[in-house]
Amino acid sequence: MDNAPDLTAIREAHDRIKQYIHRTPVLTCQSVNTLSGASVFFKCENFQKGGAFKFRGACNTVLSLNEREAAHGVLTHSSGNHAAALSLAARIRDIPAYIVMPSTAPAVKKAAVENYGGRITYCEPTLASREAAARKLASETGAALVHPYDDYRIITGAGTAALEFLEDVNDLDYLLAPVGGGGLISGSALTTHFLSPNTKVIACEPENADDAYRSFHEGRIVPIDYPETVADGLRTMLSEKTFGIIKRYVHDIVTVTEEEIVLAMRTVWERMKIIIEPSSAVAAAPVLFGKISARGGSPSTRGKVEGKRVGVILSGGNVDLEGLPF
Amino acid sequence: MDNAPDLTAIREAHDRIKQYIHRTPVLTCQSVNTLSGASVFFKCENFQKGGAFKFRGACNTVLSLNEREAAHGVLTHSSGNHAAALSLAARIRDIPAYIVMPSTAPAVKKAAVENYGGRITYCEPTLASREAAARKLASETGAALVHPYDDYRIITGAGTAALEFLEDVNDLDYLLAPVGGGGLISGSALTTHFLSPNTKVIACEPENADDAYRSFHEGRIVPIDYPETVADGLRTMLSEKTFGIIKRYVHDIVTVTEEEIVLAMRTVWERMKIIIEPSSAVAAAPVLFGKISARGGSPSTRGKVEGKRVGVILSGGNVDLEGLPF
Repeated sequence: MDNAPDLTAIREAHDRIKQYIHRTPVLTCQSVNTLSGASVFFKCENFQKGGAFKFRGACNTVLSLNEREAAHGVLTHSSGNHAAALSLAARIRDIPAYIVMPSTAPAVKKAAVENYGGRITYCEPTLASREAAARKLASETGAALVHPYDDYRIITGAGTAALEFLEDVNDLDYLLAPVGGGGLISGSALTTHFLSPNTKVIACEPENADDAYRSFHEGRIVPIDYPETVADGLRTMLSEKTFGIIKRYVHDIVTVTEEEIVLAMRTVWERMKIIIEPSSAVAAAPVLFGKISARGGSPSTRGKVEGKRVGVILSGGNVDLEGLPF
Repeated sequence: MDNAPDLTAIREAHDRIKQYIHRTPVLTCQSVNTLSGASVFFKCENFQKGGAFKFRGACNTVLSLNEREAAHGVLTHSSGNHAAALSLAARIRDIPAYIVMPSTAPAVKKAAVENYGGRITYCEPTLASREAAARKLASETGAALVHPYDDYRIITGAGTAALEFLEDVNDLDYLLAPVGGGGLISGSALTTHFLSPNTKVIACEPENADDAYRSFHEGRIVPIDYPETVADGLRTMLSEKTFGIIKRYVHDIVTVTEEEIVLAMRTVWERMKIIIEPSSAVAAAPVLFGKISARGGSPSTRGKVEGKRVGVILSGGNVDLEGLPF
């Protein structure tokens, strides 16, 4: 934690990437306000390039590499939004992006990576096979491994979404973001700590993948194996770097059920006419269904969102239209 | 046509409704520009109150009624976006909205009208039964009948979308909008004629419901019975008032296949992360698939959209998520 990023690092990341990213809009919706009783502001990273906030961190990391580090490209073994984002970011420097992906990954994810110019190497769908394939590829190509979140360059990049959000909207009582590996929530918590210390930062997690919730309350990283949740972006577990920041700067973690995730997703689609993925719905659900409480508050403090100003980071909009949960 | 609205009428309509409507955003999308080769601007009436441009005309009409006309409320026998829009507009004046709707209408449409406070009277699913029920209700309540498009108050209201669009985006080569009954396209064509006479206005229609295309080329209103198209908002036929304006101010009508409509809808959902209904996709399809031509141009002038500035009015975003075409 001693070398955790400061505000200068987050501002520098923003300066580095701002010409390449979209400054995404903040949307409001009268019927969501009526439903929740709060004033809700949505930071729309579903409109970000590559369809998710991940492009911010990938872009910051790729642009932070020195010439020697960048010479042989970048590599990751994520199969989701990070892989697409890294492929897109590598294009900016005209370097290759090597993506290790299980052969069982959905066609839509393979297509996204290929569409952005990523070079896919397939492996067996086990963590051991993935890591072995990544190591082999790294030694063959000399590419720089870019972890999807256990990396301060990724975290500061992710934190630039909250930077823009807090520039655009004053006096938020709460800032909500989903937690999977923790890159978005830890970046958001850092930024908010520096710029708006009175805003409570709430991590939002599927009840079915509540390793962050349990880690937060047990004070150590609680591992989780293959959780089953519709929020496919949140099946990962925390890392040392993200957990270190979360412990210190996140005020509370709330969990939501699978039914609440699907209903929140549907509500945002129907009322706001925008496409969000299930992981984003995880952060919308607590405000829609009155599940926010202050840290350490009793259950009776829940539902106290009425009259508050609540910011929600919609993390992404990459959905397989062939497999919708409704 | 002699009393067709002039620019003053359109500006007055905008002044009348602007505090009640959303000034909807104009969005662009790099990957749509790459796909089409054009600079494409989307006027997002899918984000309008009630989820469609229809609120503009309904609002203008309700606010144009004098006290005596408004005293007993308003009435219509549309079952789609117009019914929801009229219900919402009636609320502004705190007058009842009576909606005649076939008992077979989808639950989602009934719910939308009820949600906005409309009072539904069910009838048999035939035009004769609808008209009889509307006449009976009108004589019982004294409510003012508001036709969904054969009404200059509706047309000028619809024309305010193009007014905002042309204020926000200069020098459009083309303006595309869908045509069903013709309210949106005739309002758009009038506004464009007055404010941007060099912009070609193109009406877009499903090939399966090509009555406007045939009417345009035959010079008379060609009737159509129950066309089968996924674009449920465009199954209606032109009226005297809308056809009069279309004949004079619309430059061309292009038709698109059902496959093109569904693919365009999917492309906008996936690339732009916004929800549009099939009727909106009808106006996006020609630019995505190179189907624009100048009026009277030979087939070889088709596909000349490259390098042009093209405006598309996305008419609405009301979709039944239970019955998606993909």
